[in-house]
Order: sequence, then structure tokens, then C-alpha cells
Amino acid sequence: METKTYPSASLRSFSEAVFRHFGVPDGDAAVAADVLARADLRGIDSHGVARLHSYFDMLSLGRINPRPRVRIVRETPSTATVDGDNGLGLVVGPQANAIAMDKAQAAGSGWVSVCNTNHFGIAGYYCLQALERDLIGWAMTNSTKLVAPLWGAERMLGTNPIAIAFPARTEPPVVIDLATCAAAYGKIEIARRKGEPIPEGWAVDRDGRPTTDPQAMIDGGALLPLGSDRERSGHKGYALAAMVDVLCCVLSGANWGPFAPPFALRQEVPARSVGRGIGHFFGALRIDGFIEPDEFKRQMDEWIRTFRATRPAPGTSGPLIPGDPERRAEEERRAGGIPLLPAVIEDLRDISRRARIPFD
Amino acid sequence: METKTYPSASLRSFSEAVFRHFGVPDGDAAVAADVLARADLRGIDSHGVARLHSYFDMLSLGRINPRPRVRIVRETPSTATVDGDNGLGLVVGPQANAIAMDKAQAAGSGWVSVCNTNHFGIAGYYCLQALERDLIGWAMTNSTKLVAPLWGAERMLGTNPIAIAFPARTEPPVVIDLATCAAAYGKIEIARRKGEPIPEGWAVDRDGRPTTDPQAMIDGGALLPLGSDRERSGHKGYALAAMVDVLCCVLSGANWGPFAPPFALRQEVPARSVGRGIGHFFGALRIDGFIEPDEFKRQMDEWIRTFRATRPAPGTSGPLIPGDPERRAEEERRAGGIPLLPAVIEDLRDISRRARIPFD
Repeated sequence: METKTYPSASLRSFSEAVFRHFGVPDGDAAVAADVLARADLRGIDSHGVARLHSYFDMLSLGRINPRPRVRIVRETPSTATVDGDNGLGLVVGPQANAIAMDKAQAAGSGWVSVCNTNHFGIAGYYCLQALERDLIGWAMTNSTKLVAPLWGAERMLGTNPIAIAFPARTEPPVVIDLATCAAAYGKIEIARRKGEPIPEGWAVDRDGRPTTDPQAMIDGGALLPLGSDRERSGHKGYALAAMVDVLCCVLSGANWGPFAPPFALRQEVPARSVGRGIGHFFGALRIDGFIEPDEFKRQMDEWIRTFRATRPAPGTSGPLIPGDPERRAEEERRAGGIPLLPAVIEDLRDISRRARIPFD
Repeated sequence: METKTYPSASLRSFSEAVFRHFGVPDGDAAVAADVLARADLRGIDSHGVARLHSYFDMLSLGRINPRPRVRIVRETPSTATVDGDNGLGLVVGPQANAIAMDKAQAAGSGWVSVCNTNHFGIAGYYCLQALERDLIGWAMTNSTKLVAPLWGAERMLGTNPIAIAFPARTEPPVVIDLATCAAAYGKIEIARRKGEPIPEGWAVDRDGRPTTDPQAMIDGGALLPLGSDRERSGHKGYALAAMVDVLCCVLSGANWGPFAPPFALRQEVPARSVGRGIGHFFGALRIDGFIEPDEFKRQMDEWIRTFRATRPAPGTSGPLIPGDPERRAEEERRAGGIPLLPAVIEDLRDISRRARIPFD
């Protein structure tokens, strides 16, 4: 599809102005815009400015608090629960993650479960923040239901990502950021638009039957967990999504499982609420709480080189290191800009008209 | 296949006597036997007394230290690295896990990376220990290489399990324990014995080509990571296995990736060593470091009931809760005993003859 390319800095400024338009304080607006910009830079197009219109809608409707008072409701030296006061996840997330990192600096590790928050962008962003402080960082979040548990016929869990990053010395860091489902919802939408079938193992229809018809998934069907079916261990993807759900939501008092509130206007509102907002979970580990950081990084360099040198499977150039594709995208896009689809550009123009913020 | 059933207590006593035979101290021998017995009770036959002969071999050859001095080599209030002094993983694991739990009690959370250790049995055992202290427990370990990274043509990672358990109030706990590969090696062996093909997505042959021939995997092929291929996100299973590898080994100074030492005599010895022994990683979180434990458990009850009530996919009775199959096995086997295959019984008889410890 025809795309048009924009400098990352322009998109970031536009997002920042949009957040400020709703009364988000300057510092918070800059951080929120940075989280979105980083997703676009890293090639995760579904989580960048393509989502700005959803944030715009939620702020317009007053469903998100533009000036949250983020506070710790309970803590120990290495743990805390944070109430996000229904703020933007893009604002609450970085603050909660900073609490986890501060605790790690003081007590060796820090673990923060967050309730009363909203979508926080790419999980990997938070781990990259930890790398800047020479910490191992973890991030997880729940999200609106889309995924069926193995042997289920309905959406019960979000795509519940797990991210973790490890620094190296001369090699780039290992950055893991994965949704716990077999395929991203965005891929289903792309197949539908192209009129193509989807592979087996991605989805079930509204009756819980395996389907290769993208429309059947969209019309009340569900994504399958990582592993897809029983034979290939779909119960494991389901268990990982459950783990994320409990750490982010049950531990913090947020809405778990099918009760996660909707993010986009088109999504249905759950029958009831079992907590406040959605939930995140952040972790940070101080490397020198375990080993000399130099020794750790030297071994990570060797780990990376060893895995890069794996004998390649036929027709491939061999295994990648987690984070490779995103880092390459970032190098390209920092130089060449962010390609946007016409529908995304139209969304941004719509925001521009309605909020009277120039975009072009 | 014809099995013969033994009371769990008899098998446990036999294992205990075998460990004591090699000079393992009484308390340690009891714990080690308990870890194996728990695997058999929970239906994880590959990790119970079926492995006793491998432990026997390693102890006979002096490759495992029967009387390790397990020590903390570095620590902060919530983290530690433990050197297992080349002891049995079944002895080092419980001690290191106890350090993680003690730290959690004092600082809210505890995280222990362990080097210079050996195979520790089922990862779930350690999480069950945490439940007894009303903690959320995590356990991971690396193991001898068996799994290819996505797009790799050779074994580079172990089956690297992740386990975590959450307590509930009136419902049984959620106990997650999963290897990060698409299918267990044991299933490949069973298919070979039966002369049956294996499903697509489980394995590649020695050239890295997808195979449905179990013998082709065994003869220098490799298991595939959870997710199997690129289309179904095999890169995610690989990334999770990598995460386990780094937390268990690079962080502690153990042998990571393809350098993990062999557990059974038939396994090849790696070309070189990059650390000491294999590695584990234990974590414990104090629930009241986040939320009132009663409230947490009440929500867990509701979580479990909600997921159990998921509309079932056709031909199934609906989703299980992680830990269900193992708990049911444990109920049955506590009452009815442990069914052992003839080959396992023969192994135990061989130990009995060689160590002059009665078995039958």
C-alpha cells in the first residue's frame, strides 16, 4: 500500500501538542509522545501514532484523566502497588517503571504492579528505559480481550505482552518483547483487507472452531494463544497470558481477563468491572546484585555471537537475536523517517482539524 | 504399555536410600527424594524416579558432589547469586529457593540466580514450596541443549522451563510449569517406539528441515521452540528460552546455551565450558507487598471460576486452569500409587543390585 514518510520528530511534536491540548502537563505530554514515537521508530506501527486517534477519542470523552496523581498505595523495599488515577498508560507507565528502577537501585530489585491505568504503548519501551540505567528491565500489561484460552470458544484474555531486556558490552542489547498470542491482530486485519486467508493456528471463529477466514475471527471469533493448539502446546501460551493477567491485574486490583475495559471506541464494554482500569507489571534487577556487570556484559557479547553463528536452517540466514528487527528499523527510520498508511494519515488529519493543531 | 504400580512412599524411600548410599547427608537425601517423588505424584513421569539412574550414574562417576557447601557469593537485600558447589540440583535448588523466599519475607521480593548446580527436577516443585509460605514463587532452569532457535539447524538451548504459582482461597492454586519448546522430548521418544510420525511443528532434522520422523529428530535434529515456525511465532518460544538462559546462567556464571553440561551419560559433552555447571533462577514475591492477601485470593477464586466457565470449543470440555492435570494426577496417585514402565523398573532394579539397596 502507498505510504507517505514523515520525520519522527514531526510526529512526536504533533502527538505532544495533541496531549497538551487536553491539559496533559508539558512533561507528561513529552513522555507520552516519546513512547508513541519510539514504537514507530522501532517498526511496531500498530502501537505508534496509528493509535493516537484512540487516545484522542478517550481524552475527548473524558474517559482518561489528563492530569493523574499517580501514587503508591502499598510498598515494601522491593515492591509496590501503584494507582495510576486513570491516567494515560503512556504517562502512568513511565512513572511506575521509574519506581521499580529506583527500588532496584536501593534494594537490588524493584517490582511494581499498577492498577487504574490505560494502554501504555510498547512494552519494550520500559525495558529500554531500564537499559539506560544499566538495569535488566521487565514489563507486562494486560489489554482488552482478544484471545481464547486453549479449548475456549470466546475471547477471555488480552494479547498480554512480556518484555525483558539485557545489556551487552560491544554488541547491541537483547530486547525481548512478545505478545503471548500466536499472531498479532493487525495481521488478521491485513489479511482481511487483502482478501487472503490466514494460516491455521492463528484464530478460531465465534463457535470456537479453527478458522482460516480473517473475517470469521473479527466477527466474534478469537485469536489463539502462542502454541496455537493442544498438539503444539497452545496451553503454554494461554498459561503465559494468565501469568501476565494475574501479575498485572489481580496483584494490583485492576480489571483482569475478560473484564479489561475497552481501549478503542469500537470495542465492547464488559458486562461488569472487577477492579480499576487495566494493569501493568514492571520489574528491574540490578546486575551487580548478582555478578560484576562487566563480566555479565562480556558473556552477553559471547552469548549473542554464539547464537548469531548458529548453523542456519535451509532458506534462512540463521537465527536473529531478539531485538534485531526493531533495532534495524530504528536505524533506518531515524534516518529516513516513518512511513504512514493513508488511513493513519487521515486519522491524524482528523485530529488536526478537530483540535486545530497543524499537521502535514 | 504394561505398567506396574508402586506406592509413592516406597519409591521415595528407595531414592532416599540411593542418595544416602553416595554420602548425601540424611536431610539432603530426603529433600532430593521428595522432589523426585513429587514429579511422579504429579504425573510428570519423565522427571521422577525415571531419572534416578542418571543421578546414580553421575554420582557413581563422581561428577556430582554429594556434600556440597552451597553458598551465597553476592547479595543485596532482594537478590543473590548462589554457588551450588556442583551438588545435586535436587539439593541445591531447594536451598537456593529458600534463600529467595527468606529475602521475599524480609524485603518484599527475593531473586536468586544459581550457578555450579545440576538438574533440579520439576520447576513446579519450587513454586509449590513458595505456596506453602503464602508467596508467589517462580522457578526456571536451563538444561542440556535440545532446542533449535527459530531458523537454526542445530541444538542451542535446553527445554528451559518457566514455572510460577499463585495461591487462591477456596479454589486450588494456579500452578504454571511449562517448557519453552513446542513438545517434550519424551513425546518424540514415545512416537519412535510406536513407529508413528510426529506432528509438524515439533522438530527439525539434522539439516534444520522440518520433519515428522521422530528418528530424524533424535539423530542430531532438534526440537522446535514454542510457536514452532515463523508463521506461528516460533521466534517467541526462542526468545522465552533465551530469557531463561540469561537469567539462570549469564547472571550467575553458569554454562549457557549449547555449553550446558550433559545430564545423562548418552549426551555429548560440549566442546568447551563458559561457566560452572548449569544454572537456575528462583523468585518469590510477598503478596502483602502489593495487596491484602485475602483480597488477592478472593479475586483468584473468581479468576479461576471465570476461566473455568469459558464457553467450550467444540469437542472439548472447555479450558483447564494451569495446574489442573497435575493436581488430578496427584490425587489419583496419592491414593493409587505410581505406575512405572518396565524399562524404569529395570533401571531401578539395576541400581538396587549395584548399590545393594532392596527394591521391589
